[in-house]
Amino acid sequence: MILALDAMGSDLGPSAVIEPVKQFVKDFDTDLWVYGDESALSSLKDVPRVTVIPTTEVMEMEDGPLAVRRKKDSSMVRAVNDLKEGKVDGVVSSGSTGALLSAGSLLVKTVPGVERAGILSPIPSKTGKPFALLDMGANASCTPEQLVNFAYIGKSYMRGNYGIENPRVALLNIGTEPHKGDELRQETYKLLSEAEGINFIGNIEANRIYDGKADVVVADGFSGNVCEKAIEGTASFMMKTMKDTLMNSGLLTKIGALMIKKSLKKMKDVLDPNQFGGALIAGLNAPIVKAHGNSNEKAYYNALRQLYRTVKEDVVGKVKSELQ
Amino acid sequence: MILALDAMGSDLGPSAVIEPVKQFVKDFDTDLWVYGDESALSSLKDVPRVTVIPTTEVMEMEDGPLAVRRKKDSSMVRAVNDLKEGKVDGVVSSGSTGALLSAGSLLVKTVPGVERAGILSPIPSKTGKPFALLDMGANASCTPEQLVNFAYIGKSYMRGNYGIENPRVALLNIGTEPHKGDELRQETYKLLSEAEGINFIGNIEANRIYDGKADVVVADGFSGNVCEKAIEGTASFMMKTMKDTLMNSGLLTKIGALMIKKSLKKMKDVLDPNQFGGALIAGLNAPIVKAHGNSNEKAYYNALRQLYRTVKEDVVGKVKSELQ
Repeated sequence: MILALDAMGSDLGPSAVIEPVKQFVKDFDTDLWVYGDESALSSLKDVPRVTVIPTTEVMEMEDGPLAVRRKKDSSMVRAVNDLKEGKVDGVVSSGSTGALLSAGSLLVKTVPGVERAGILSPIPSKTGKPFALLDMGANASCTPEQLVNFAYIGKSYMRGNYGIENPRVALLNIGTEPHKGDELRQETYKLLSEAEGINFIGNIEANRIYDGKADVVVADGFSGNVCEKAIEGTASFMMKTMKDTLMNSGLLTKIGALMIKKSLKKMKDVLDPNQFGGALIAGLNAPIVKAHGNSNEKAYYNALRQLYRTVKEDVVGKVKSELQ
Repeated sequence: MILALDAMGSDLGPSAVIEPVKQFVKDFDTDLWVYGDESALSSLKDVPRVTVIPTTEVMEMEDGPLAVRRKKDSSMVRAVNDLKEGKVDGVVSSGSTGALLSAGSLLVKTVPGVERAGILSPIPSKTGKPFALLDMGANASCTPEQLVNFAYIGKSYMRGNYGIENPRVALLNIGTEPHKGDELRQETYKLLSEAEGINFIGNIEANRIYDGKADVVVADGFSGNVCEKAIEGTASFMMKTMKDTLMNSGLLTKIGALMIKKSLKKMKDVLDPNQFGGALIAGLNAPIVKAHGNSNEKAYYNALRQLYRTVKEDVVGKVKSELQ
């Protein structure tokens, strides 16, 4: 297995990948090709099983879909191109979502029958079983047909990877009744009710997604992104509040805090975005994992780990065969 | 002061208001008029300072804006009508958002210059100072002009009620750069950049709203609602996870958990939706607080408390004079 890492996408600069790359090849039986500025990555030169692929251009956060044709020697386009050519088995990038989606769609291409790829991540629920949320930000505006498309992608993902026979699909909305929401939601509701092979269970509100009632939650890229980022921000805010509260309390509380430290860590991990590391651009012919723009070392490590598992368990192959 | 409570809006039925009403009039120096089915509210009959206003119709969750003209003897319309006529000083309702907004707009009317009212709630931030999020669900689809309108309402709210001289206004979006998001966001970004008297600081992503950088976060009612409900769901999911984790751990952890119990409660309160109780329908000439559809007893109590403070501190008067 050879995995590819676009090293130039992080807000923190390419140095953020050095440590996670070193650690990753120690822990997993895979080669890693790291694309980016040669001098910034020089300390990776002699690391066994790591190959630095020097590139001269950088995809900036401001770069949209059009930049893919312009910046042919960017670390992102080079990595995705090698994926297209079968030289590597998967790509991790934390670069501009628009550009990455476009590179994926242009080069690796969407699975036949899939109009638009969507960003998908499994999210834990109260039952312990995760649900798939998509689109988490690939498509800022969507048509009802695209949302139905996401329902099929999400269904295939949950069937293929979690063995759920007939995944329950819900539409993220601001009320549960069929007429709730804007025109997009009302029209999508109708289409999903009639969609063949989709076990549509109706609308779901963002405060109920954890209930374990839905295996797939379908959203347009705007509200899906808001949902995912609100989850992330709230989880991190609560952990910070808890830490502050415990540390500013009396001695007894501090001792109590030390006693539950391990449990707290476990809880933190449940919704820590760096724990997920990244999200799959689902609906493409090969695996691309989008890591956060503000990925730190832990996030890169986990995004690579996620890609490793995605390749190892042939997640994309399963989605493809389900979709066909 | 006389406050009004629409008792028929809760998914849990009118019985959910009995205890919070009794407790509320004990704790606060105000009269309370409770609108709803006379027999269901019979146990409130002899409670001092509580007046049951019998009504014969019920605004259902499925009822939209049009129902306001049809169901004139519903508890919701009767309460809002008494607010219009100055018989009461404010209304709490957990009924259909669309109907409540419509009742408010038709009867109490929006402040001159305000096209559409928005649902607003202060939300805590990492700095300890709250920010105002609006619209949290009143308008499923919005125009750029309406979002600018919300910016003015939010600004007035934060100036009037938190004494912030020049509130920093941000636009909820899925990226920070000006071109990010859909057409609505791109156009709104332009308008907000040029809006007179608005201290526009740019786009904000949902994971950064707690950072304390913005005093007002402007959103359309769809994504604002998704954001607010994702916050609510995540906070409650994390508290549940923590409880489960601590209770299923060894004895030492359990003892530790008991030692930090008080601190944990404090943390829970920070983001507990029942703690807020409700949100203000901002931009109207008189205060209406929208409580959650699934309001429990604690939520009703807190919604009433919120309305009490809103009236006592003349929040609406301050917003009105700021807007003029």
